[in-house]
Amino acid sequence: MPILNKDMTLCISLAAQPSNIGTRFHNYLYDALGLNFVYKAFAPADLAQAVAGIRGLGIRGAAVSMPYKEDVIALVDAMDASAAAIDSVNTIVNDGGTLTAYNTDYLAIARLLADHGIEPGTTVLLRGSGGMAKAVAAAVRDAGLANVSIVARNEQAGRALAGLYGFAWLPEAATETADMLINVTPLGMAGKDEGVQSFSDAQVGAADVVFDVVALPSETPLIKAARAAGKRVITGAEVIAIQAEEQFVLYTGVRPSPELVRAASEFSRL
Amino acid sequence: MPILNKDMTLCISLAAQPSNIGTRFHNYLYDALGLNFVYKAFAPADLAQAVAGIRGLGIRGAAVSMPYKEDVIALVDAMDASAAAIDSVNTIVNDGGTLTAYNTDYLAIARLLADHGIEPGTTVLLRGSGGMAKAVAAAVRDAGLANVSIVARNEQAGRALAGLYGFAWLPEAATETADMLINVTPLGMAGKDEGVQSFSDAQVGAADVVFDVVALPSETPLIKAARAAGKRVITGAEVIAIQAEEQFVLYTGVRPSPELVRAASEFSRL
Repeated sequence: MPILNKDMTLCISLAAQPSNIGTRFHNYLYDALGLNFVYKAFAPADLAQAVAGIRGLGIRGAAVSMPYKEDVIALVDAMDASAAAIDSVNTIVNDGGTLTAYNTDYLAIARLLADHGIEPGTTVLLRGSGGMAKAVAAAVRDAGLANVSIVARNEQAGRALAGLYGFAWLPEAATETADMLINVTPLGMAGKDEGVQSFSDAQVGAADVVFDVVALPSETPLIKAARAAGKRVITGAEVIAIQAEEQFVLYTGVRPSPELVRAASEFSRL
Repeated sequence: MPILNKDMTLCISLAAQPSNIGTRFHNYLYDALGLNFVYKAFAPADLAQAVAGIRGLGIRGAAVSMPYKEDVIALVDAMDASAAAIDSVNTIVNDGGTLTAYNTDYLAIARLLADHGIEPGTTVLLRGSGGMAKAVAAAVRDAGLANVSIVARNEQAGRALAGLYGFAWLPEAATETADMLINVTPLGMAGKDEGVQSFSDAQVGAADVVFDVVALPSETPLIKAARAAGKRVITGAEVIAIQAEEQFVLYTGVRPSPELVRAASEFSRL
């Protein structure tokens, strides 16, 4: 029997192709914590009217996914530093009609760098130049890391991203080494590049920490090689779980325990 | 555990003071019939933006309650005859971005008059002159009944309503009799007029059919008197259940069995 009641607070997601992950993650936690909230995914027919609906219906929060992360900037009232840093929004919070935009991918990466005790002196090879690479680069810069090389075949995108934060640009990095390797490309992701290891065994061997943003699957060839070599790893599954936890905290004001976040994250992927 | 999934179709209600009745009625039937729908009540912050949200989020249907039944007319694309007849909307259906407005109170009353076999020759005393009285008067006229007196202390409202359909107006009717008595005032409703019987025992005795639109409670003094006198009765509970059933059919295209409607209606009032 559905448990809905008239007083429930609604949170939503806006994505051209919604997945069930957010719906399951948030509703699991609402239920476990006894919060009178409900979460529903939408594929909006019109972004501006959907955002009007957030205001008009008093929807508390909205996750924003492809292809709306930039277009939504013009429709909100305020940009939190996390979204302003990378000109990209993945979360909207509605406080009595005032919409503030956040980027919890940025927040999650910043928190993971802090939790794993990444020191400012750490050298970094960061592979990728897309939207998520921008979030990672900004968080790396904001963690005080300066000795960073952006590795990207696309010269225009690679140079632009590197220039944004005063980093170096490399078209490729077959032999270069660094204390920390970060993959923000689709290499290792389910699909045609699933079997591809984004940094070599030698590079993994020379590193202390290996971070792969790929989440599906999170056990990529790179992560497997790093585990086999006894390196510290940070996975895309951690990024997804923490960014969702930060959304949850922004919407509800409640921070669930790590155990609950883990359980909700597992439930969301079933 | 919540049963929501990303593919669910959302229907909503818009009311300044939502009740749980619609939420419980519709969700009960979605569950019983295995429909991938979910229903959520809203107290909109802004009506125009809420209706934009119906379009932008692809919400399938919306019940419209006080005080939005007239204001919403300017925001929809088309008026069904049921809403146009009384310039009042209680239901919006979204077909791929085209919003059509209906009034299922009108539809419910028209269906009850037909189901109870009310003949065109039937004489009627109709007490009341508000929005619901307009719906009842329109349905009575459209059922072919012409010998109708509108009983209303408010002369302006009473004359206006009577004039709309070519009916007579009476400021009061203490002794008049008719085949059918219809109460569309708050007399007998929970609150200060709960104990008031809207037509006399003598009027009840002279009638064949007694119809009280009051639904909370539906066993009003008038309905009790009519039952005691062995008269045919039509109650406000029937109006509410049928208007909700007609909304359900408009949203889903599925007509639930009378047994299911009865069960959902009972569940909605628990």
